Amino acid sequence: MVRLKGFTKLTPLDEALEKFFQKTRLERLPSENISLSEAFLRVLAVDVIAEKDVPRFDRSAVDGYAIKAEDTLNASVFHPKKLMLVESDFIKNGEARAVWTGQPLPDGADAVIMLEHTKKSNGKIEVLKAVAKWENVSKKGEDVKAGELVLKAGTRLKPWHLGLLAALGYEKLEVIQKPKVAIFATGNELVEIGEEPEKGKVIETNRLILSSMCRELGAQPVDLGIVPDREESIKEKILEGTEKADIIVSTGGTSVGKADLVPETINKMENASIIVHGIAIRPAMPTALAVVNNKPFFVLSGNPVAAIIGFEVFVRPAILRLLGAEKEARFRVKAKLARRVAGVLGRKAFLRVKVYEKNGEFLAEPVSVTGSGVLTTMTKANGFVVIPENREGLQEGEEVAVYLFDNIERDENHV
Amino acid sequence: MVRLKGFTKLTPLDEALEKFFQKTRLERLPSENISLSEAFLRVLAVDVIAEKDVPRFDRSAVDGYAIKAEDTLNASVFHPKKLMLVESDFIKNGEARAVWTGQPLPDGADAVIMLEHTKKSNGKIEVLKAVAKWENVSKKGEDVKAGELVLKAGTRLKPWHLGLLAALGYEKLEVIQKPKVAIFATGNELVEIGEEPEKGKVIETNRLILSSMCRELGAQPVDLGIVPDREESIKEKILEGTEKADIIVSTGGTSVGKADLVPETINKMENASIIVHGIAIRPAMPTALAVVNNKPFFVLSGNPVAAIIGFEVFVRPAILRLLGAEKEARFRVKAKLARRVAGVLGRKAFLRVKVYEKNGEFLAEPVSVTGSGVLTTMTKANGFVVIPENREGLQEGEEVAVYLFDNIERDENHV
Repeated sequence: MVRLKGFTKLTPLDEALEKFFQKTRLERLPSENISLSEAFLRVLAVDVIAEKDVPRFDRSAVDGYAIKAEDTLNASVFHPKKLMLVESDFIKNGEARAVWTGQPLPDGADAVIMLEHTKKSNGKIEVLKAVAKWENVSKKGEDVKAGELVLKAGTRLKPWHLGLLAALGYEKLEVIQKPKVAIFATGNELVEIGEEPEKGKVIETNRLILSSMCRELGAQPVDLGIVPDREESIKEKILEGTEKADIIVSTGGTSVGKADLVPETINKMENASIIVHGIAIRPAMPTALAVVNNKPFFVLSGNPVAAIIGFEVFVRPAILRLLGAEKEARFRVKAKLARRVAGVLGRKAFLRVKVYEKNGEFLAEPVSVTGSGVLTTMTKANGFVVIPENREGLQEGEEVAVYLFDNIERDENHV
Repeated sequence: MVRLKGFTKLTPLDEALEKFFQKTRLERLPSENISLSEAFLRVLAVDVIAEKDVPRFDRSAVDGYAIKAEDTLNASVFHPKKLMLVESDFIKNGEARAVWTGQPLPDGADAVIMLEHTKKSNGKIEVLKAVAKWENVSKKGEDVKAGELVLKAGTRLKPWHLGLLAALGYEKLEVIQKPKVAIFATGNELVEIGEEPEKGKVIETNRLILSSMCRELGAQPVDLGIVPDREESIKEKILEGTEKADIIVSTGGTSVGKADLVPETINKMENASIIVHGIAIRPAMPTALAVVNNKPFFVLSGNPVAAIIGFEVFVRPAILRLLGAEKEARFRVKAKLARRVAGVLGRKAFLRVKVYEKNGEFLAEPVSVTGSGVLTTMTKANGFVVIPENREGLQEGEEVAVYLFDNIERDENHV
């Protein structure tokens, strides 16, 4: 039966999220052991406790001479101190040995005098400046001490994290498996990218968009293709998704008319239930959140912008939970709104804006009419502003928090 | 001959960059034709002008009935207007035809009334609300008009850009080739990741770090390994780099002592010159910028943090130029400095900070002593602050611009 009516009740976003995550109890995925060279942007699965000091030995931080600091007491350009140049592995009073940046400090030495502050002559050096004990020395364990908690589970591995792990002696490490996200699009009107659509047909772009959004988060998209508007076909795809992936996402067929087929299908399946259908947001209102065979299933709108916002608001936090990286957030800045915009009472609205820098200040220029679904509102923007449910709109000049999905272009006053 | 002295003169950063880019005249790399499914985060090589309208036809933006708007004049719940349900391809006055979101508007119709605002009975519908002309219709060309400049060359392709290109009929497109960056590390003391270093030896981590930084920018690292401190070996590597890559990067061997071998080697090579050696920054002061066989060669410090800052300041803008994406900038926020820090007069210092949100305000907590080279100052931080040459330090509570290299963790007051 077709539901020929609107949503009788929309669920507020926070409530929808809470219900959904309570019901699905998404747990962190298992880990896998991979080499450091493949670990860039993966998520660390374990707390890393240093087994070794970094550096592993006292070493010179500069090019110069290893010495005993007390030998340089009161040394100056006018009263240089003379020290004997030696090659031995143990430095005694009155001796100096050449060392280069990174070289181990010879035993006995407790400081390094920089080349710049010495003069060399006849197997001796003249020290032109006093140095303190341990000056110009990188002490053993200065960076990391053995036993120290160095990195926490849930860390997204950036270049410096990898470098530190390598310095600690790691060659392989435990990272969380990539969440697999099965994606299909429903609709008899859809044709594949590159095909020439006949009148009334539309090129299906949501799978490409959402697959890329998965990649950005370090998830692995599993493309299940386009499905015709038939319950049996949709059911098959959903089941294929639950077998192949950790999360299932569909686009289209979630409005309330003839095309309300995906929720209808779920309602008739075993081990399947819709948790929420119809969210008080704009766009992406007709989103449905479901569970099928204990896997989360996100039924997103067919409109590309609504699908993007639905992914952002629901699928992204689910992926981050599977990765154990819930704290990860989009970059955000405060900006002044360049002109007033209307909101919709009772709905949380996701306004696309272009943030730019002017005279050292961030301005946010709205590029979307609230709820407008055209894709150019994304491509012309670099962030979004959330208009709360209880606001009729936002004022020109009002300070807003912008969640950035693209960079703010360099202006003239920039490093 | 070994230069047993310090740098006699340090070049200010801006002057170094200007000299270098003037001398090297880096031009955008050629493009290549790839499929949209591989184009995520690649850089667009051409301006994209739409050849087609998006949408390609007037279509319904909602589930409802296509009608003539004038037929709904003064309609209300109390005074519904009755329209005849038809299936024809042309709508006349007094008629309505069911349409679903995305379906083409039948000829003759000029608006859609939402399902919610109708009642159905006996082959007729009752319209409970007036609609304006073109209400609930996505007009042909509403998103993009044929002939419109849609995306500019230099755009880093995000999910929505790919979606829009697909909607415009693209299956393949021209992107800039990935810049190839050859990387080698010099030093007799270095061992490979995973090897157990003997006393005095050090695990080489810079190639892993810088390769990852290349990947982050969409460049392709070419690993040339570890090179011993011998001019002949270094020269071979440099030449190998110029053959295999667009940019060459080395780490180590750029201080002024025994290890000053890379600059020495460049000085003796043909078609090679050092443009700047010794920059007034901290860390990364001993960086050298050179040209060999018309290819830019960045001689970075062996210290990992100095190598990272050197890459950030010099290699990153070079890669972006080769990509034609010079305007791309790191995310940046304004934050209040949580405590005062010292600067070094005459040097631009790159202070690593941890930005966090507290009561809706961004605070930046310094995690590095100016110039300190330990890698944990990167792993504990998520951004850096530039202390200008002419400042003795920055004050507690001072507003600073932070360039972010990692996300600011979610706090409680967060969407």
